[in-house]
Amino acid sequence: MEAIVAGAVAGTIPDYQLAAWLMAVTCRGMTPAETSALTAAMVASGETLSLGRLGQATVDKHSTGGVGDKVTLIACPLAAALGVRVPKLSGRGLAHTGGTLDKLESLPGLTVDLEPERFLRQVEQVGIAIAAQSERMVPADRVLYALRDVTGTVPSVPLIASSVMSKKLAAGAAGIVLDVKFGRGAFMPTLEAAHQLASLMVELGSLAGRRVTALLTAMEAPLGRAVGNALEVREALGVLEGQGDPDLREVSVSVAAEMCALAGILADPAPALAAGAGLDRFWALVEAQGGRRRVLPEVAPEAGVVAALEEGWVQTVDALAVGNAVLDLGGGRRRKGDPVDHGVGVVVEARPGAEVRWGDPLCRIYARSPGAAAAIEPALRGAWTVGPEPPALSPHVRGRLTSTPFPRA
Amino acid sequence: MEAIVAGAVAGTIPDYQLAAWLMAVTCRGMTPAETSALTAAMVASGETLSLGRLGQATVDKHSTGGVGDKVTLIACPLAAALGVRVPKLSGRGLAHTGGTLDKLESLPGLTVDLEPERFLRQVEQVGIAIAAQSERMVPADRVLYALRDVTGTVPSVPLIASSVMSKKLAAGAAGIVLDVKFGRGAFMPTLEAAHQLASLMVELGSLAGRRVTALLTAMEAPLGRAVGNALEVREALGVLEGQGDPDLREVSVSVAAEMCALAGILADPAPALAAGAGLDRFWALVEAQGGRRRVLPEVAPEAGVVAALEEGWVQTVDALAVGNAVLDLGGGRRRKGDPVDHGVGVVVEARPGAEVRWGDPLCRIYARSPGAAAAIEPALRGAWTVGPEPPALSPHVRGRLTSTPFPRA
Repeated sequence: MEAIVAGAVAGTIPDYQLAAWLMAVTCRGMTPAETSALTAAMVASGETLSLGRLGQATVDKHSTGGVGDKVTLIACPLAAALGVRVPKLSGRGLAHTGGTLDKLESLPGLTVDLEPERFLRQVEQVGIAIAAQSERMVPADRVLYALRDVTGTVPSVPLIASSVMSKKLAAGAAGIVLDVKFGRGAFMPTLEAAHQLASLMVELGSLAGRRVTALLTAMEAPLGRAVGNALEVREALGVLEGQGDPDLREVSVSVAAEMCALAGILADPAPALAAGAGLDRFWALVEAQGGRRRVLPEVAPEAGVVAALEEGWVQTVDALAVGNAVLDLGGGRRRKGDPVDHGVGVVVEARPGAEVRWGDPLCRIYARSPGAAAAIEPALRGAWTVGPEPPALSPHVRGRLTSTPFPRA
Repeated sequence: MEAIVAGAVAGTIPDYQLAAWLMAVTCRGMTPAETSALTAAMVASGETLSLGRLGQATVDKHSTGGVGDKVTLIACPLAAALGVRVPKLSGRGLAHTGGTLDKLESLPGLTVDLEPERFLRQVEQVGIAIAAQSERMVPADRVLYALRDVTGTVPSVPLIASSVMSKKLAAGAAGIVLDVKFGRGAFMPTLEAAHQLASLMVELGSLAGRRVTALLTAMEAPLGRAVGNALEVREALGVLEGQGDPDLREVSVSVAAEMCALAGILADPAPALAAGAGLDRFWALVEAQGGRRRVLPEVAPEAGVVAALEEGWVQTVDALAVGNAVLDLGGGRRRKGDPVDHGVGVVVEARPGAEVRWGDPLCRIYARSPGAAAAIEPALRGAWTVGPEPPALSPHVRGRLTSTPFPRA
C-alpha cells in the first residue's frame, strides 16, 4: 500500500495501472487490515495537523454527504458551546450534495482558508474553527479521487472509507463523529450499505488510535426544508435560535451529543439548543473568520412556486431530484472547481407527512430569473409523491456504532 | 462493445478508462453474448481476409501456447496433404511459450511476411501457407493486449477468448481447430479452466458462423523432446518422416484428424503420417515461402548435459521451467520485439516414465557457450522429479468440444 500510494503521488505508477488497481479493489473489496494500511499510507503522503496543544477534548465531525445537510452548522457550534473543541476541516459540495465550505462562504467576508496557526488559535479562543483542508494534506486522496471519478470506481466501500478517514486522521482530532447517510439523496443507497461503510470507518479510526462514533441517518428526503447554500445557513440559524424543522433538530442534537460523549463532556444538547446556546458560538466563528455578526447571507429572489396538483398526504420527497434541481440552478458544482451561486435554492414547504390540497405550495424556488425557476419545475414536481393516506414516518437516526466505551451523554 | 473498441483504436478513450474496464471484465467476467459482441467489434476494427476463392474446405489451426509445441509444423502439412486447404496466420512466441513464426524463421531464407494475394495463391497451389498476421488486421487486439500486459488483466477467459477468436475470425477460414493446452507449461492451469476457455471459443466461432472443434491437451511436460526453434523444426521433420516421439505424434494426428473432419474429408491421418505424406507438403511450403528444400536450420552446439543424480523413474518434467531455461538461453522473447536466437534450446532425453540411473542424461543443452549452458543447469535439473515407481501416464488429448455435427474422421 505504501508503494502504491507513493507511486501514485510521485507519478511513477502510470494512471492505467492505478485505474486497474482501483477497479480490482472496487470489484473484489479489501480486508480491513488492507484498508487500514492504505489509509495510513494516504495520511503519510502529506502534512498532518498536530492538535496536541488543544488537549484531548478535540472532536471532528464528518457527513458522507446529503441534500440539505446543514447539520455541521448547528451541531458543531452547539458542541463548542458545551465545551467540545471543534477543529473542523471541511470539503466542498459535489454533484447533488452540498458542502459546508460553500454554505459558510455565502456569508459575506467569511474565509475558510486558515493557515494552521490561525486555525489552532481560533479553536483555542472560540472553541471552533471550520476551514478548508490544505492542499498539502493527503495529496494521495486528490490523485486517487481524480482517477476514481473517471473510472467508475467511486462506489467502493473501502476506497470511500480510506478517503474519508485519511482526511480525518490527518486533521488530528482525538474524536471523530461520522454522520453516515443512506437513501435516495446519499451515496449509500441502503441502511445496510451505510452500516457496512460506517463499521469500516469506525474500525479504521480505532486502529489509528482515535475515538470514533458513527450515526446512520436517513437521507430519503432533503434534511430540513432549505436546499441551497445561503438558504441553508438561514435555516441553520433558525434552529440555533431554538426554532426550525424537528427532523433537522433531531439529527443535529444527536450529532452534538456524540461529540460531547467523545470529548468526555456530560451535557444534554437538546435543552441547550432550545435555549440558543450554539447561536453566539456560530457568530463568534463567523466573526473570527472574517464575516460580520448577524449579517445574513444574500438569497436570490423567490422566482417560482411548485404547487400541488393532487390532494392527499406527501409520501416521499426525492432528495436526489431536489439536489439535482438546485444543481441546475447553479447552486452546486458538477465538477471540482465549478463556480457556485450561493444565493439560489429550493425551500420545501410540504415535507413527507404533510397534507396538501390542490394548489398548495410543495416548494419555493429561489432563482436568478423566472425562466430558470420554470426550467426546473417539472423535475421538482416529479420529486413529490402524494397518496391518500398519511405515510409511516421513521426517526432519522437509525443506527449507531462506536469504538469507545464512553457513555452517551 | 463497438464504442469501447472504436474508442480504444482511435485513442479517444483514455488508457486509464480502458484499463479499469479490462480489470472489471477480469474480475466480473462477461456473458458469452457480451464476449461475442466484443469479438465482432474487434474483427471489425481492421481488415479481414476473404477466402471465398479457396472454397469451403479451408481450416485454420490455433494453439493457446505451450512448451515444445511444434504440432502446427506437423498437423498442418499433413492435413494439406490429405486435401484440407490451410490458410494459417500465426503468432510469435512470448514468455516461455514458442511461436510457429519463430520456428519457421529458423529455416534459412524463409519469410512469413506474405501479402494477401501471395498468401491466397500459395494456398491454392501448395494447399498451405503459414504467415504473420498483417498489422492491419484486428488492430484492437494489439491495443487491448498491450494494456492487458501491464495491468494484470491477461488471465481473463473472455478476454483471452475474444483475442484468439477475433484473429481467427478475421483470418477467414470456414473451419477452426483449437488446441487448448492446460498444465504447468500452458496459460490455463487446469483441465477445467481449459474446458471453460475452449467452450467459450467454440461458442464464439459458432456464433460467427464458423465450424470449430477444440481439443484439450496436456502441457505438463514439454511436448515431444525438443524445445527451441531450430531444434523443434528438426524434431517435426522427424515425425513427418514417420519417426519421432509418440506423444507428439498423438497430438499431431488428433489435430490433423479434426482439420480433415471440419473440411468434410474422410481420411485417417495416422497411416498417412507414418507413410511420410506430410513431408513433401512441408518442403513445398518452405520452398514457396523462400526457403530451400531439405536445408535444415542451424542449431547451436551441444554445450552441456544435465545428468541424473538420482535413480528411478522420471515422474514429471516441468514444462514451464524448461521453457524459461530456453528463454534464458535467448531462444524466446520476454517482451514483444525482443530478438530471438533460433539455434539454441534443450532436448529432453528422459521423459516422464523413463527409467534413469545415476549419470544418465536428463536433457542436452544447445547453447552459444558452455557458460550459458552451465547457467541454466540448476533450473533445468529442478524441472525433473524422479521417484521409485513408474508414474501413471495419461494420454495427451483429454477432451474435445465441437460446434459441428461433422463426424470425426
